[in-house]
Amino acid sequence: MKNNSSFVLIEEHLNKILNNYYEDFKQAISYSLFGGKMLRGQLLLLGLKDLNFNIDKSIDIACALEMIQAYSLVHDDLPGMDNDDYRRGKLTNHKVYGEGVAVLVGDALLNDAIYIISENVFFEKEILIEVIKNVTYKLGSNGMILGQYLDLTTKGSNTNLLEVKKIRQLKTVNFFELVFVIIGILSKSESQKVLKMEKIGNLIGHAFQIKDDLDDFINDKTSDKINDRPTVTCVNSIENIKRTLADIKNECINEIILIFGKGEILKIFERMFYEY
Amino acid sequence: MKNNSSFVLIEEHLNKILNNYYEDFKQAISYSLFGGKMLRGQLLLLGLKDLNFNIDKSIDIACALEMIQAYSLVHDDLPGMDNDDYRRGKLTNHKVYGEGVAVLVGDALLNDAIYIISENVFFEKEILIEVIKNVTYKLGSNGMILGQYLDLTTKGSNTNLLEVKKIRQLKTVNFFELVFVIIGILSKSESQKVLKMEKIGNLIGHAFQIKDDLDDFINDKTSDKINDRPTVTCVNSIENIKRTLADIKNECINEIILIFGKGEILKIFERMFYEY
Repeated sequence: MKNNSSFVLIEEHLNKILNNYYEDFKQAISYSLFGGKMLRGQLLLLGLKDLNFNIDKSIDIACALEMIQAYSLVHDDLPGMDNDDYRRGKLTNHKVYGEGVAVLVGDALLNDAIYIISENVFFEKEILIEVIKNVTYKLGSNGMILGQYLDLTTKGSNTNLLEVKKIRQLKTVNFFELVFVIIGILSKSESQKVLKMEKIGNLIGHAFQIKDDLDDFINDKTSDKINDRPTVTCVNSIENIKRTLADIKNECINEIILIFGKGEILKIFERMFYEY
Repeated sequence: MKNNSSFVLIEEHLNKILNNYYEDFKQAISYSLFGGKMLRGQLLLLGLKDLNFNIDKSIDIACALEMIQAYSLVHDDLPGMDNDDYRRGKLTNHKVYGEGVAVLVGDALLNDAIYIISENVFFEKEILIEVIKNVTYKLGSNGMILGQYLDLTTKGSNTNLLEVKKIRQLKTVNFFELVFVIIGILSKSESQKVLKMEKIGNLIGHAFQIKDDLDDFINDKTSDKINDRPTVTCVNSIENIKRTLADIKNECINEIILIFGKGEILKIFERMFYEY
């Protein structure tokens, strides 16, 4: 997934964005901005490509989404949150640069992501405001951040499937829905079609988090257990979870073909879940 | 300063904004959102009032500025940053709700502040994008957040006046400049006039921080000393600092009268610095 042209475009553009940063601070930001799959940014660009839009105009918006994803991970890893020492096979930001800098790295990534969207010169201001409104709604205190709050304050040993699903929706699925809503906004799709796109984001998001929880469970990831985090493996059997994932996957493939055809979104989705 | 009608308007509107929040999280957010003087929000409204604009349309933008100010304080107080136990005479957010929640409270306040600006229905989208662009530029990784980074990584015992001024500019003055730039944007003032307004913000910001450092020094505030923070009292005599402050104050009063007349901005400024 890392040798796609959309991946390369995003990495290159992120490097350009970082050019103007203060050197020491830039290093701390870069450290956590690169190394991932740039999945959300890639989905944005590939969705627009499937709809035959020129993706060059949207690269900075894809970068902004990756900056926001990176901010949420840096803050999630902090000692007061998940207290993770490793992320993507290397030490977490605060383990290398200290907690104070890690807090500021996250703040900078969120703040600057919005700046980058507000600076885009290719789309009308109405469209940019609509993008910013959706970003900050889906990922705000009634969205992703609330999901992080509930994840932090809910014990896995004392939860239920409904609660786990709610946290998953807010903490993870909202972001995938957002990516597809932005595809709808940038492509000026009619509202019914945007809803169908959002539904695809919803299905991908659920599949993504269920797969993540399964992988963590199978690979015996320790921090979820130590922190008693409310994952789906706390409340359901592995058999059942795998069946749910297969169902979501099939439904999602059908929806993707309806809206995006058999294009890039379908390809990346199938690569994400080929083992399930 | 807390019984002004602009103060009351901002507090009331912030309470309305918080109505829709998840209950437990709302408490943690409210805890740090209220209790201050709402100075930046008040300056915005009073500046518009002096220019004969209807301030009702801008209350949510004033609230957004206060939310951003609160986010920066909550994150500044964290153990990895200033490690302050008290703020405004009560325990800091992380002392009451824990570090994880305090990180999320800050994130939510920044994120939602932008959401609130993007949702404003009184101003054209071009104006709102311009506001958001300036907010995230002045307060971002080349602005306030960089100032926080430099403040964190610079030792007071090994600094100089130039460095102290740069950090003050970024960490504090930028925000006051921003308030006055937004007055310019919302009042659709011509660019020369906006620059003059920004200059007023600049002078108020410098005066504000110098006064703050002086007060902390005189009242023997401990955390700056413990953390070896680069304040002006590290690099200049109290005599000299007081003289500088008096000069800035006089210059600022002249500039205020030129742009805003002898109105509310002049009044609040004189109340801020009546003892100097």
